Amino acid sequence: MNSTASVSTQLHLPQPYLLFLGDTTEAGYAKTAFGLRDWAPEQCVGELACSEDAVTLGLPKLTPAEAKARGARSMIIGVANMGGRILDSWMPSLLEALEAGLDLVGGMHTRLADTPALVAAAERHQRRLIDVRTPPRGIPTATGRKRSGKRLLAVGTDCALGKKYTALSIARAFKRRGLNADFRATGQTGIMISGSGMPMDAVVSDFEAGAAEMLTPDAPPDHWDVIEGQGSLFHPSYAAVSLGLLHGSQPDVIVVCHEPGRTHIIGLPDFPLPSLEETIDLNLRLGRRTNPAIRCGGVSLNTSKLSASEARELFATESRRLGVPVADPIRGGEEFEHLLDHCLR
Amino acid sequence: MNSTASVSTQLHLPQPYLLFLGDTTEAGYAKTAFGLRDWAPEQCVGELACSEDAVTLGLPKLTPAEAKARGARSMIIGVANMGGRILDSWMPSLLEALEAGLDLVGGMHTRLADTPALVAAAERHQRRLIDVRTPPRGIPTATGRKRSGKRLLAVGTDCALGKKYTALSIARAFKRRGLNADFRATGQTGIMISGSGMPMDAVVSDFEAGAAEMLTPDAPPDHWDVIEGQGSLFHPSYAAVSLGLLHGSQPDVIVVCHEPGRTHIIGLPDFPLPSLEETIDLNLRLGRRTNPAIRCGGVSLNTSKLSASEARELFATESRRLGVPVADPIRGGEEFEHLLDHCLR
Repeated sequence: MNSTASVSTQLHLPQPYLLFLGDTTEAGYAKTAFGLRDWAPEQCVGELACSEDAVTLGLPKLTPAEAKARGARSMIIGVANMGGRILDSWMPSLLEALEAGLDLVGGMHTRLADTPALVAAAERHQRRLIDVRTPPRGIPTATGRKRSGKRLLAVGTDCALGKKYTALSIARAFKRRGLNADFRATGQTGIMISGSGMPMDAVVSDFEAGAAEMLTPDAPPDHWDVIEGQGSLFHPSYAAVSLGLLHGSQPDVIVVCHEPGRTHIIGLPDFPLPSLEETIDLNLRLGRRTNPAIRCGGVSLNTSKLSASEARELFATESRRLGVPVADPIRGGEEFEHLLDHCLR
Repeated sequence: MNSTASVSTQLHLPQPYLLFLGDTTEAGYAKTAFGLRDWAPEQCVGELACSEDAVTLGLPKLTPAEAKARGARSMIIGVANMGGRILDSWMPSLLEALEAGLDLVGGMHTRLADTPALVAAAERHQRRLIDVRTPPRGIPTATGRKRSGKRLLAVGTDCALGKKYTALSIARAFKRRGLNADFRATGQTGIMISGSGMPMDAVVSDFEAGAAEMLTPDAPPDHWDVIEGQGSLFHPSYAAVSLGLLHGSQPDVIVVCHEPGRTHIIGLPDFPLPSLEETIDLNLRLGRRTNPAIRCGGVSLNTSKLSASEARELFATESRRLGVPVADPIRGGEEFEHLLDHCLR
């Protein structure tokens, strides 16, 4: 467990993008592309599919050459399939993009750089193949040194319940209030949305906290890093990722994310979800190790399955019970403003 | 965070060994070689240095060819230097070993496989270059499923205070009592001693708990895995490693390791060491997630800086205070037998 030389670098993606949809007919498999359209519209020049009945984002349909002419610098593979593979049917479009002068960005399990035909074409056209699941080199071990600036981390009772959208919403709201704030991405989609970040789940565990330190460096005293969380301290598979991120990001404020009605860890029916009280308590206890001033700024509920009135009722009862603001950032409203106030208190 | 196909494999080293000491004149840099001599004497055929004033382990001094003739299957680089590099002065000996039909095993930061001259020679002589810092391929994500058999994990207040020797001592003592037990190595030296294991600090964090599950598979109900711990839940750099190992190894019993008199995390003077009470409590709280029956079997103190009477006095007072057996496994004695009884209770 020795430290290596520090190189202060994250992944950086060439923006703006052309979004590649492959031949995906189900919107669920194009979540990344929809996320990019919704959260980084100014970075999305257009869309490209390789089948007529593929899903559409409602963006201009462009060839790689047309996208390049409109300023695109890379084409992002914005779809996933079950195996995380690059399909043969996609290859003509991917090669056309390289030929047109676009870099390729992928977040699949199969790395672009492990596909010989793409490597050869990228070399020929002097383009880059960027896998957002591959961490940068030279990540140092963490030092635990207190850094300047403010940090907010979205944590959760489980995976896949809104930590990314909570952090994106809070960063956007902070900026709307005129604050100096940055969204800090820790997963594939988040990195594509923000154009930079650290794929925390792909970092070697000895350097996990160090990667989080690198992602959220020293900043001016009034600057906020709003950090996308990963996994959960209670997740039997991924808690190591969550703890390294918590220690390394040394948050001043946590916002705890949860989906009402979810009773068990997704995919692991033997593991009941922790209570919100327990989640707040454990994150504060462990987070205190690198930031003794850590506090809970509120609870973010994913209420997409509730009606507006059900949601508001729930915010009120949960807020009374827990003693912190409770809101759904996607719904916004006065509850969310109250949560923001409490984070900035 | 998707699982990959499960391949139930650990690192396995070709035993017995010839121990390579390089030109190391300070015993402190040959800790690995001394550990191998002390803990796996039956696997150590002899020693080889490439300088006359190098340290000696008191083993037969053999050339690679002589070691091969006595049954050695690999030569282990049992020394470290500040940079973790393979020195030019070592190369003739390393090449001679490959030529004599020995595989090479290294645990340095510089991988053997990144040294072209060694790669070429290994290919020529059909030998393997094994880096014990490189995890096996195909580690799955953890499932959290309860496995059969019993598990004991050595945890600690910090790094480098006796977790490996505590686990080795307990595994040896269990076997002496006629129990079915295995030492499970999680770091470089431990892997070399046992001939197999998992370099937990080199595993990608998403698979950290999965690697621990793979290291300690289903076993007969009366079998004990005695697992070497890594880092500390309180270590601002390495807690992710410790939590993944705790969750994945789902111990029935923890033994908490500590060095009396150590007040701060080694190398990080701003971080006070946690109390033993806090260390026990946090390990049990987090460990309960994958094994609700987890309990503390006792405390292992590294008393190498104390006299025998000071140590015994300390065992008594600490045991009264904490309510669990306290011993130094290296000293043994009735306190250690009592700790073993309590672990097996």
